[in-house]
Amino acid sequence: MSEVEENIKRLTANKHVQGVLIVNEDGQIIKSTLEPTLNKKYSDLITKLVEQTIFCIKEMDDTNDLTFLRVRTKKHEILIAPDKEYLLITIQNPETKS
Amino acid sequence: MSEVEENIKRLTANKHVQGVLIVNEDGQIIKSTLEPTLNKKYSDLITKLVEQTIFCIKEMDDTNDLTFLRVRTKKHEILIAPDKEYLLITIQNPETKS
Repeated sequence: MSEVEENIKRLTANKHVQGVLIVNEDGQIIKSTLEPTLNKKYSDLITKLVEQTIFCIKEMDDTNDLTFLRVRTKKHEILIAPDKEYLLITIQNPETKS
Repeated sequence: MSEVEENIKRLTANKHVQGVLIVNEDGQIIKSTLEPTLNKKYSDLITKLVEQTIFCIKEMDDTNDLTFLRVRTKKHEILIAPDKEYLLITIQNPETKS
């Protein structure tokens, strides 16, 4: 099993996890457990948000870089782990402590 | 002591906290413990990032809203708590567990 598939399996086994989405550096979806109708919208929006966040960080200090982004909302929490080759995005219940 | 001042006092007492910045809804700095030269740049960039994050969340679901944003970088972690009237921004060491 690939590292990506292992990550998805581990994450989706967590009862608080609502969905997992993996997007490559070109914005293409590699893996998803979301409803198919949401995939394109979520991957486009989150990829753009990560680019904006990296821009913000680099404007503050161009030798710095993003390692993890956690967006807590009223309805869920979006965890984004950027990697060289892809973004690992997890959507979970907001109550979860991790 | 105002609620804002109490928040700053509590946060800056934490040894992991490098700085606290409070920005009102018009982007004006209410309080800051950062170096004065950084205030304008940080408040402008973080205010813009919060607007972009709220836009992203509302595009995904317009009945949802941002409650907390955590940006972990190689050098520090930026915690942003949006309120009706202001943003409470804390910059702390990335190793800190909270």
